[in-house]
Amino acid sequence: MEQGVLKELISIVSKLPGLGPRSARRIVLHLLTDKEKVVASNLNQVLQKCLDEVKQCSQCGNLSVQEICHICADEARDHSVICLVENVSDIWAMERNKIYKGGYHVLGGCLSAMKGVTPEKLSLNTLKARALSANVEEIIIALSSTLEGQTTGFYVADFLKDSNVKITRLAHGIPIGAELEYMDEGTIMHALKMRQAF
Amino acid sequence: MEQGVLKELISIVSKLPGLGPRSARRIVLHLLTDKEKVVASNLNQVLQKCLDEVKQCSQCGNLSVQEICHICADEARDHSVICLVENVSDIWAMERNKIYKGGYHVLGGCLSAMKGVTPEKLSLNTLKARALSANVEEIIIALSSTLEGQTTGFYVADFLKDSNVKITRLAHGIPIGAELEYMDEGTIMHALKMRQAF
Repeated sequence: MEQGVLKELISIVSKLPGLGPRSARRIVLHLLTDKEKVVASNLNQVLQKCLDEVKQCSQCGNLSVQEICHICADEARDHSVICLVENVSDIWAMERNKIYKGGYHVLGGCLSAMKGVTPEKLSLNTLKARALSANVEEIIIALSSTLEGQTTGFYVADFLKDSNVKITRLAHGIPIGAELEYMDEGTIMHALKMRQAF
Repeated sequence: MEQGVLKELISIVSKLPGLGPRSARRIVLHLLTDKEKVVASNLNQVLQKCLDEVKQCSQCGNLSVQEICHICADEARDHSVICLVENVSDIWAMERNKIYKGGYHVLGGCLSAMKGVTPEKLSLNTLKARALSANVEEIIIALSSTLEGQTTGFYVADFLKDSNVKITRLAHGIPIGAELEYMDEGTIMHALKMRQAF
């Protein structure tokens, strides 16, 4: 039914994460049946602006409109600690809790033979350079607790072992609000092993 | 966490139908963390093209890149029948079944005192003009079977009563695949009243 340029727009939108053909059609109709097309032209302008202006922070890999992102540039933060995350979305998730006040480093994914992600494709060398700089004392590995994330964590720890920084990782355990009966054995085992004084 | 132009983009995306702040963040990150930003610039170009080219068909109100949409222009279709729908998405839904081969007319919504939709805001006059033209024989009312849709249906039927065309509406009944026990009384009553020979 949809033809030409409309079909093309729907096809692009339907491939965005979390969307499919139906939701894409709904969004495109919403954008184009609007009388003045305010939302659509607004979206177009802002997206163009983002494409022009937003780049990766040359230090940590966060998205930024400046050469150095606002986290790296913030002198109130403790830059002796670097939190190593997979993606920019992880920085956003960490920042939402407003507790962590150190710096970040975006690795760019996890090692995966299946997906062809080799160490060269990750920002390991810039991480090592940062680890070797005088003022960095600790690197917190905050990768996914999946098989790939854990493998990558071990690789990173090994890769940095000569750099004389403390390497830590996020605690594993029962998530807050979770019911014990639905937890998998691995999590329970870990939570039990790492049990703390009450 | 997200600042400036990024925040703006997320805010626009989060207001699209079916999306919220989380899915918007995910989509924006997907668009902007991509190495070459292919998807984002593609989306931007195609959206701009749609904004420039897509307009309403001057006859039926469908979206089209031409003055007259491909349905109205299709000589193989039977233009003596007009299917009256609320929105362009209804045309797309009708066309997906590939059975209907007549024309359409987009009303632009339903009458609603609450939302301030008065008869003047709907494309009733162009519908009447089409109904009065020599070759139109039937108008199928295919509005939602909600209270507002039905009220609008009655209004349209009354509005067109002098125009000498046959006015019909889609059949009500049990939807295919539905279980009787979950059907509301109104539907069952209607299906019973309109029962057909087996």
